[in-house]
Amino acid sequence: MLDFSDLPVVDAHCHPYTRKDALSPDQWVDALAFGGGSPAYLREGGIDVDAAALTMLGRLKRDTLYFRFMLRRLAEYFGVEATVEAIAASRNRAIAHEGYAKYAQKLHQAGKIETLIVDDGYPLPQINLDTFRAETGVEVLPVFRIEVLIQDLLDDGCGWREFQRRYDESIAEALGNRGYRGLKSIIAYRTGLDIDPASRSPDQGRVALERLRRARGRGGDDPVKSLRDHLFCRAIERCIDFDAPFQVHTGMGDWEVHLAACRPALLMELLRYPAYRACKFLLVHTGYPYHAEAGYLANVLPNIWCDISEGLPFAGNAGKRIIAEVLEMAPISRVCYGSDVYGSPEPFYTSALLGKQALGQALGELIDDGFMSVGEAQDAARLILADNARELYRI
Amino acid sequence: MLDFSDLPVVDAHCHPYTRKDALSPDQWVDALAFGGGSPAYLREGGIDVDAAALTMLGRLKRDTLYFRFMLRRLAEYFGVEATVEAIAASRNRAIAHEGYAKYAQKLHQAGKIETLIVDDGYPLPQINLDTFRAETGVEVLPVFRIEVLIQDLLDDGCGWREFQRRYDESIAEALGNRGYRGLKSIIAYRTGLDIDPASRSPDQGRVALERLRRARGRGGDDPVKSLRDHLFCRAIERCIDFDAPFQVHTGMGDWEVHLAACRPALLMELLRYPAYRACKFLLVHTGYPYHAEAGYLANVLPNIWCDISEGLPFAGNAGKRIIAEVLEMAPISRVCYGSDVYGSPEPFYTSALLGKQALGQALGELIDDGFMSVGEAQDAARLILADNARELYRI
Amino acid sequence: MLDFSDLPVVDAHCHPYTRKDALSPDQWVDALAFGGGSPAYLREGGIDVDAAALTMLGRLKRDTLYFRFMLRRLAEYFGVEATVEAIAASRNRAIAHEGYAKYAQKLHQAGKIETLIVDDGYPLPQINLDTFRAETGVEVLPVFRIEVLIQDLLDDGCGWREFQRRYDESIAEALGNRGYRGLKSIIAYRTGLDIDPASRSPDQGRVALERLRRARGRGGDDPVKSLRDHLFCRAIERCIDFDAPFQVHTGMGDWEVHLAACRPALLMELLRYPAYRACKFLLVHTGYPYHAEAGYLANVLPNIWCDISEGLPFAGNAGKRIIAEVLEMAPISRVCYGSDVYGSPEPFYTSALLGKQALGQALGELIDDGFMSVGEAQDAARLILADNARELYRI
Repeated sequence: MLDFSDLPVVDAHCHPYTRKDALSPDQWVDALAFGGGSPAYLREGGIDVDAAALTMLGRLKRDTLYFRFMLRRLAEYFGVEATVEAIAASRNRAIAHEGYAKYAQKLHQAGKIETLIVDDGYPLPQINLDTFRAETGVEVLPVFRIEVLIQDLLDDGCGWREFQRRYDESIAEALGNRGYRGLKSIIAYRTGLDIDPASRSPDQGRVALERLRRARGRGGDDPVKSLRDHLFCRAIERCIDFDAPFQVHTGMGDWEVHLAACRPALLMELLRYPAYRACKFLLVHTGYPYHAEAGYLANVLPNIWCDISEGLPFAGNAGKRIIAEVLEMAPISRVCYGSDVYGSPEPFYTSALLGKQALGQALGELIDDGFMSVGEAQDAARLILADNARELYRI
Repeated sequence: MLDFSDLPVVDAHCHPYTRKDALSPDQWVDALAFGGGSPAYLREGGIDVDAAALTMLGRLKRDTLYFRFMLRRLAEYFGVEATVEAIAASRNRAIAHEGYAKYAQKLHQAGKIETLIVDDGYPLPQINLDTFRAETGVEVLPVFRIEVLIQDLLDDGCGWREFQRRYDESIAEALGNRGYRGLKSIIAYRTGLDIDPASRSPDQGRVALERLRRARGRGGDDPVKSLRDHLFCRAIERCIDFDAPFQVHTGMGDWEVHLAACRPALLMELLRYPAYRACKFLLVHTGYPYHAEAGYLANVLPNIWCDISEGLPFAGNAGKRIIAEVLEMAPISRVCYGSDVYGSPEPFYTSALLGKQALGQALGELIDDGFMSVGEAQDAARLILADNARELYRI
Repeated sequence: MLDFSDLPVVDAHCHPYTRKDALSPDQWVDALAFGGGSPAYLREGGIDVDAAALTMLGRLKRDTLYFRFMLRRLAEYFGVEATVEAIAASRNRAIAHEGYAKYAQKLHQAGKIETLIVDDGYPLPQINLDTFRAETGVEVLPVFRIEVLIQDLLDDGCGWREFQRRYDESIAEALGNRGYRGLKSIIAYRTGLDIDPASRSPDQGRVALERLRRARGRGGDDPVKSLRDHLFCRAIERCIDFDAPFQVHTGMGDWEVHLAACRPALLMELLRYPAYRACKFLLVHTGYPYHAEAGYLANVLPNIWCDISEGLPFAGNAGKRIIAEVLEMAPISRVCYGSDVYGSPEPFYTSALLGKQALGQALGELIDDGFMSVGEAQDAARLILADNARELYRI
């Protein structure tokens, strides 16, 4: 059995969080569980959010394997029973006793987490990264989510000339002066990954914005998609200018993701388009559950990285399967650990534990099946847990 | 090794059958094997159905893992060799000796099958459920397949005003007075799951029916799809009125299913549409081989159930993989055992055996990997084999 | 543990190669690794191909599991260390010592490879098969790739009357007189597998060719797709005339494949279209990573075969998963071993080793799970490794 628990971790994709001191058991579940709906979701559907509905929502969250794993690992960490009540009490006690920063730092250290690449476009309003750095005690390097900027410019009401100028300048400022290490796009949540690669012309942006602003004109294309496709291609060009990686959300997200339009396969025409071959793309979440497509792209195209976040840890025991299936085709040097976690230090720790366990299982099977030696597996683990991301982000 | 053989079973999706007494070995294969074509299929393709063709068809049926598993388990049940001839002779002898009802009851009891949720829209003409109940000795609760009603109304030739009235009244009568516990749709076999959620307006039904009836008019949409989308959305509203679940076929079917249009992902826009959030949807067959999509939907949306039928047992050894992969995201309380079997009592028994074996393997791996305790696994098995369906159908 | 190493192999899909004597380590990697980009690919993207870029390309190739497996098995074969340098030196020494043909023959014999079904449409210019036969010492049976012919006719500039005549005559000559055992299409690389089955009319070919040739006329359909769809359907009809199998590329290819349009599911309407039911279709690469779809089609339709090539060996350790998942639904008699390898004798040998190992693992699990006896597994292995292809190609 391979044991990678002592290896350092760079989390290639996650989100900053703010301090949360004492939490009731239910608050802790709300902050950390994944999926399962919310009172607001039900209310928007005209459903009465009574006690029974709240019980149902809480039960769904506790009935996921993600949550069960986290609970068991934290029970071991705190030395208590694996119940929400015991864990919430333990964390509150620890925070009261040693202070929030110390509590957070110990969990990150227990997971050997050295660096976090964070998308600070979630949650909103944006979190102060200096505070976050101070509280977690780890290196924090941000990527810049273009959809936050796009929404600001849409809300502002400016015309195309100004829109275009401010879009380019904000990205250049982020990459050039503000310490952002790359861009990030969640276009899979908006108009989908079937982006037309031939969308670079500023005319496309102008026409689409005018149709949106004035609700007039007609044409074959959806102006929303046409505008977003243009801005996506324009962001690729900025990444090339700055030699910065572009994180693209692929596959699973939350209830708002456009599931029929988030497959990595839809990106293929764009990824291999000659004008964009100089850009380094990180396929965020490696497209789970369509992760084999991401691995394929990382094999046949030389500028593609996969991070295994979100599927690991939010898809329960999928981690070892995701790693094994992505490595069917992706070169070992193109797969990065990531978690996509947020909200509180606990899941950063348990996700690192799960990642190391899953990697041990997946690589152990490759040794058994004659694909690599123990030494090669140890090298692969170091690359996937940290060094591939360090190379990509020049850390 | 977890052993769930003594746990009771509610089959969340299957079909009624009529008594079949003595069967020749070939008749038994024809009645119970899955897939592989038929003489009628070949003839429609202009192919001569000679002895060689018949041999080929029989061989394909016997060469599936589904069939091999059933044969081996029935050989153990009867204490004979695992050959079609020995099994067919054993069943004929048992039926002649103890009577058909006793034979059927013993098999259902051997599988600990307590309740069958049956879609009596297959086979046609519809089977008398009182006879079926008496012969099987188990609780039988039907769901109402809307496509049988739609076909009757299309065949009848009535106009929209009457079509609409009879459609609503028949569904209300089924759910309110005739004992049906929910609705079922196989729209995946007809026009596909990419149903436009904004199809509730009766005008959409009227225009589409008139274009179909008179073969005139023009418009962007296919009137067949437009009509079926409207009737589907209308059925959701009736489910909400009666607080009855809606079973939606997703994924694999037989040779007639629309494979490119049966993925659960295509349903996402509809499932999260505010007007339909109060409806409980059961994704029948959990969309196999796209079952990870169904698990995802059951995670992020609070009103989705998955049944693992058809993939288990018809997809051979897929069962443990289907359960493991659906549970990656679906809450434990949202996954139901089902079989989709039909025709004779034998596969009801062998499917229950396979389901329990697969569940034991999948949950055993979750224990080994630190996701749950043995006690939690036993609770999960009870939920998946029976209690989740009991809660959904209020049994 | 099942050991199939002594069983004979028919490779249902691979490519001929020419002799390559002494190769430097880097040349050997270039000839045999799969994926990872090329200097030409980078240059077309305006990227400077400097020493660092070449190092990166070489590293990606060596970092795939496919390459690692090949290296380790060849190290065992030659009795040297598993390094590129040691293997390249060993092969060069062996070829210099015993001659190229002897070297090639020993590797094919070590894999017990008796027959190769080769698509001689790759590489181009086409390789002389008599030379290839003499050098490998195995039976070599070609299939005819229609896209080579189509490209010749497009390049020639002839009108539809001549295009149509030469297309039909060339295929008839290939199948009737030139020893080709079937046709092959890579339309998945061109316009995708969503072929309209109602494309048989010669009028469709004429109109499309004229629109292409003269860049004029207008219509709803893409003339490129319309022409290729027609020629594909026309090829099916020739296969039926000659009772020859039709190999259709599905799923993964290289960087040029149309990934969003290569799923086997897209073929379903065509495969079940009555006019084409008499054609035997081999779904090449069984659609990996969409292989479950191919298995499904092989279950519900009686005229579908799956070959497991390309995923095995190019997708690393995917082989056992591909076999297990295809056999979930495909009848045992409809699955064939294949490799898709090319270039040099080494991967023919290591692919056969991997195929036998993966088959042993997949069938071993089916024995453990009660689906078959050891004897049935041995029969299944013989069928999949050789006899199913022999029956399909009447060898």
